[in-house]
Amino acid sequence: MTIRIGIVGYGNIGRGVENAVAQNPDLQVVAIFTRRPPDTIIPLKMGVKVVPLAEVESWKGAIDVMILCGGSATDLPEQTPELAQWFNVVDSFDTHARIPEHFAAVDAAARRGGHLGIISVGWDPGLFSLNRLILQAVLPEGHTWTFWGKGVSQGHSDAIRRVKGVKDARQYTIPVETAMARVRAGENPELTTREKHLRHCYVVAEEGADLARISHEIKSMPNYFADNDTTVEFISEEELQRTHAGIPHGGAVIHTGVTGANKEHKHVAEFSLKLDSNPEFTAGVLVAYARAAHRLAATGKTGCLTVLDVAPALLDARTGDELRRSLL
Amino acid sequence: MTIRIGIVGYGNIGRGVENAVAQNPDLQVVAIFTRRPPDTIIPLKMGVKVVPLAEVESWKGAIDVMILCGGSATDLPEQTPELAQWFNVVDSFDTHARIPEHFAAVDAAARRGGHLGIISVGWDPGLFSLNRLILQAVLPEGHTWTFWGKGVSQGHSDAIRRVKGVKDARQYTIPVETAMARVRAGENPELTTREKHLRHCYVVAEEGADLARISHEIKSMPNYFADNDTTVEFISEEELQRTHAGIPHGGAVIHTGVTGANKEHKHVAEFSLKLDSNPEFTAGVLVAYARAAHRLAATGKTGCLTVLDVAPALLDARTGDELRRSLL
Repeated sequence: MTIRIGIVGYGNIGRGVENAVAQNPDLQVVAIFTRRPPDTIIPLKMGVKVVPLAEVESWKGAIDVMILCGGSATDLPEQTPELAQWFNVVDSFDTHARIPEHFAAVDAAARRGGHLGIISVGWDPGLFSLNRLILQAVLPEGHTWTFWGKGVSQGHSDAIRRVKGVKDARQYTIPVETAMARVRAGENPELTTREKHLRHCYVVAEEGADLARISHEIKSMPNYFADNDTTVEFISEEELQRTHAGIPHGGAVIHTGVTGANKEHKHVAEFSLKLDSNPEFTAGVLVAYARAAHRLAATGKTGCLTVLDVAPALLDARTGDELRRSLL
Repeated sequence: MTIRIGIVGYGNIGRGVENAVAQNPDLQVVAIFTRRPPDTIIPLKMGVKVVPLAEVESWKGAIDVMILCGGSATDLPEQTPELAQWFNVVDSFDTHARIPEHFAAVDAAARRGGHLGIISVGWDPGLFSLNRLILQAVLPEGHTWTFWGKGVSQGHSDAIRRVKGVKDARQYTIPVETAMARVRAGENPELTTREKHLRHCYVVAEEGADLARISHEIKSMPNYFADNDTTVEFISEEELQRTHAGIPHGGAVIHTGVTGANKEHKHVAEFSLKLDSNPEFTAGVLVAYARAAHRLAATGKTGCLTVLDVAPALLDARTGDELRRSLL
């Protein structure tokens, strides 16, 4: 019996989920749900239905886990609770500040429907959160740092595109290597936003646009760029397409702590990712947690969980005995 | 209500557990159980009893979790199943090949007694196993490497001490940096034992001993040194004590995998540790899992588990709501 997966939303993450499921023989995509005209979507595999999202409720009982691949700004706050009434759901909601509120909404809906939801699945929130938690529990007298990049920030790229005279843009978040080195050395430095990350922007300007003004507007944009050392580089549309079409990302969680009768021993733990494709890696995490959601729901568990609540063995198709023999 | 901890065995790990518990206000060491004369042990804190191990059964009901700090060769295979009849137990059993057998013995005993055991808790097996599992589940088309060191291997140091003419010794396992670099670059290299780790031995020879023979015997020792490039350096007892008294260790789990319709995207994930004190860090892991054991036992769970079966949130004293707000 394969686990029947539904994909809601067919952007980068949705396509990534479709590819990731193909790498997992115990899972199968049965339908893709979309707000676009269904005939504009051609699934990778034969036999996968493309269905208007408005008809999703009629698939109750035919999908084991719905993987929601929409955006955190407007899609997921609405879709995840709605679908949790009818299905087990997994999403990658990543607006950190609004997680408690989203959790409460999904929890209520899932309990009402007798289903299970796992939210904020991905790498941050997600695998990075797991590492922050485990390392803080193991070394409670310590400090945790998270660095992001080098990678493309979609939100910051979008912000640049809203500047007048900008045709297209790609923003890279770059961790400051010297800051990471100080953290790894156990210095416990106080680091400002500016000291942790640089921002480099590749900008395609409209013909005749005032480049100095664009550059100034970007660098002084509050919340996005004003608190970082930001560089702006104007390039051609052709170069943007050729050199910056990918969506790489990554980062590191570093935790340092002390032990011993006199706190004389230092420890440094680090979890790092270097990803060619941020959405495809996120999709891989979503798919592993979809397997866990199915297994937990099968035990009668309902309501909302996060990655912090899921026993790792549930992520892997192998039996406990195989896992203990092969990788413990 | 603090969680009442018993420590079985008062070597490096046992003392580490005592120190680690002191960093966790929700836990308290109530007794140390030992095969040595109890009056030879002075606990760090007032009020902690030192009790002959032979009397341990009489503490049934007075200890929430026993943390077993003996060795994997002879202590734990006997002690963990025996104590699991009467107590919830956590151990750091680390003989990888014998884990299934140890698991079965602890599982049977714990079920019989209505208790819970978590075995093979530490960093390898332990946190490294968790990372191997999670990363393989997320990137199933991939390869996993584990490198150890730079650090002191107790087993290898002991093996050197058994060579005739050797007074004392300290062996460092050193990962080959070029091999790690190839793995991180996504080359998926085939690496032999020799290509992954070097072994460097500091040896204190007895006066008049044949150094060439000692060196040759160490380097050709099967299972321990013959398959690695091994260097032997003779030093004075005074230098060994001064420079090599610590028990540092560490290592890295590196997993690389591919995603995308044409496997065109590479990903590299790495979890690494750099530990000033191997036993104290292991103790920190044991204490976090002791908290989880107590919580799981309180829900009625019995039998044997490993780190793979424990939801990470159970490791941390904070509530789910606090964890979601502060670190998800």
